[in-house]
Amino acid sequence: MEHHVEAVDRSAKKVKGTTLDGESFEVPYDKLLIATGARPIVPELPGFDLSGVMAVKTLEDGRRIKSFIKDHDVKKVAIIGMGYIALEMCEALRERAIEVAMVKPRPMFLPWMNESLAAMVREEVEANQVKIHLGHDVQRIEKSEAGLKVVCSELDLDCQMVLVAIGVSPCSELAEDAGLKLGPDKEIAVDRTLLTSDEHIYAAGDCADAYHVVTGQRTWIPLALRANRAGWAAADNVIGTRTELQGVAGTAVFKTFDMEVARTGLNVAEAQKYGFEPAEVMIKGRTRAHAHPGSCTIGVQLVGDTKSGRLLGAQLVGKEGVAHRVNAPAVALHAKMTVEEFSQSDLAYAPPFGPTWDPTLTAANQLLKKM
Amino acid sequence: MEHHVEAVDRSAKKVKGTTLDGESFEVPYDKLLIATGARPIVPELPGFDLSGVMAVKTLEDGRRIKSFIKDHDVKKVAIIGMGYIALEMCEALRERAIEVAMVKPRPMFLPWMNESLAAMVREEVEANQVKIHLGHDVQRIEKSEAGLKVVCSELDLDCQMVLVAIGVSPCSELAEDAGLKLGPDKEIAVDRTLLTSDEHIYAAGDCADAYHVVTGQRTWIPLALRANRAGWAAADNVIGTRTELQGVAGTAVFKTFDMEVARTGLNVAEAQKYGFEPAEVMIKGRTRAHAHPGSCTIGVQLVGDTKSGRLLGAQLVGKEGVAHRVNAPAVALHAKMTVEEFSQSDLAYAPPFGPTWDPTLTAANQLLKKM
Repeated sequence: MEHHVEAVDRSAKKVKGTTLDGESFEVPYDKLLIATGARPIVPELPGFDLSGVMAVKTLEDGRRIKSFIKDHDVKKVAIIGMGYIALEMCEALRERAIEVAMVKPRPMFLPWMNESLAAMVREEVEANQVKIHLGHDVQRIEKSEAGLKVVCSELDLDCQMVLVAIGVSPCSELAEDAGLKLGPDKEIAVDRTLLTSDEHIYAAGDCADAYHVVTGQRTWIPLALRANRAGWAAADNVIGTRTELQGVAGTAVFKTFDMEVARTGLNVAEAQKYGFEPAEVMIKGRTRAHAHPGSCTIGVQLVGDTKSGRLLGAQLVGKEGVAHRVNAPAVALHAKMTVEEFSQSDLAYAPPFGPTWDPTLTAANQLLKKM
Repeated sequence: MEHHVEAVDRSAKKVKGTTLDGESFEVPYDKLLIATGARPIVPELPGFDLSGVMAVKTLEDGRRIKSFIKDHDVKKVAIIGMGYIALEMCEALRERAIEVAMVKPRPMFLPWMNESLAAMVREEVEANQVKIHLGHDVQRIEKSEAGLKVVCSELDLDCQMVLVAIGVSPCSELAEDAGLKLGPDKEIAVDRTLLTSDEHIYAAGDCADAYHVVTGQRTWIPLALRANRAGWAAADNVIGTRTELQGVAGTAVFKTFDMEVARTGLNVAEAQKYGFEPAEVMIKGRTRAHAHPGSCTIGVQLVGDTKSGRLLGAQLVGKEGVAHRVNAPAVALHAKMTVEEFSQSDLAYAPPFGPTWDPTLTAANQLLKKM
């Protein structure tokens, strides 16, 4: 039913709205699941409603972007934002030989990353002729002879298409209007059974939050696995099969050009924010054994808590063997392992896949010296 | 000092032997480390001492094999054994366009593996024109016109070189003669500090055993990481810095042709042997997201204990993404996680690297239904 839902009447336990034909409707519920997702953030600035200015979230968005590129013979794109989506999109555009410039207001490239690792990613992106403009506030988008112009502080970017990739926000208005408890990012606050602050209403997917397995606190990290897992667990709970979710470790990976970038858990700033006393180490190792051909550099950062000895987070960057390597420290975070315990993990070794000591173990051994 | 050590005199705390010049010597010790390694098993059968019959363990062995191939223009090799080393060597030989036949007495290919997974590996090996002969006892090796003939029950293999790859045995004679406690595979029994049954003697490397993190029992799984780690820990303990090792999970990986094969923990038979009540599941998934090009089949087997709910082991086979994927369940074994806890792990997802639910999680979800 592609109806427009306008309100949740919690006292009457009814959902109210308007059908596509303009008729009002009501649906009563015993249990309600809100799974409204998230939407791309689009700044309220002049010109963001121009044709050729697009965000990417859904499959339909992707199709629209492809059509626009084809129909307008796009040769030059400006991307506003430099997160996962922006970096994945810039690879896709360069693959079509489209010129790409990226811009954002903050001065740091991947500010959540260890600086040396962020530099490895930046180098890869720039080696693929992508222009990176940091520290420029976007003021407006204008029509121009070339097509569009992104007007920033001390910078104008001419292009034919603009991608807006500055993050997403939860679609939680319905929940907010109904008086449900929201979390700090305006996401719908849920417990480990996906129940909201109303005992008859569940929320799951990108609109809802999760507990972080490292901090034990609410966190809003809207990613696919959690969304999918929350859907299953909410369904169990709705039908009366109690299912609790541990929460998320914030494990994520993306690929930009030939570089794999992964993280799990907390970085140093986050660790400090949550009351840990973090120590950090960054090592560069090899993705294969010394004598094995095709080996690449891999950078590994680990963060530990000097008070408790616990492993708090990991970041990895390299051209191979990064995406799945992050999962070992991710499981260690779920298990609340200390750095010392993780350092003793019996990880797989064969020359095509890594050195005898996996780079994550080498990093753990180095971090132990600071703990 | 390339001296020949002949005995450890524990009461006098002296090592005794003969120098290369034939002179006897004695070295007194406060603490002694035995790190004598392991050697390839060579059956005591006729013809195993012929020129062209070789085992592979050391770098020098590898060089000798390369020279022999070159000097004798080897076109055909018989490999006795079908373990890691045998399967790695057959890839190396096929790379040089050498015909390869493998033979072993037992009827199963990779008998420690889940049958469906073993079939995937066998298919890959046979697709590379390697002949696999199961269930043939090797009786002797003879000189022949072609060079050598491996005479088996109901089978003769003509070749110019024979590789013997039927496993290794610990070099523990010195320890045995000195009356040190040995384990069930005749390896030197050590505690978590690498101390032998003599408080002044440590042992580390392939000659010594370890505790298994799943069973808590002694196990002898001589692999590189453990050997290396044990060396470091023994050194710490010898100099008085107490260091305990948790033990091994039996995590291992090898590559044969384009197939990656990995395992950690126990298989069903091992689980039964150690008093668990195992349930097993095998699923086939994809190495990348549905819509991503280049995706391959990945087979994942998980074993759990129906009594305690614990995860006991994992096996993986596939053409990519296997080697590092095994490390997440390996860490889960160290943490003594249940299958349910592991199934909730927040593993990394992006389309180039796997489906939203990593195949190890899909397997865990399926295994839960049998627990």
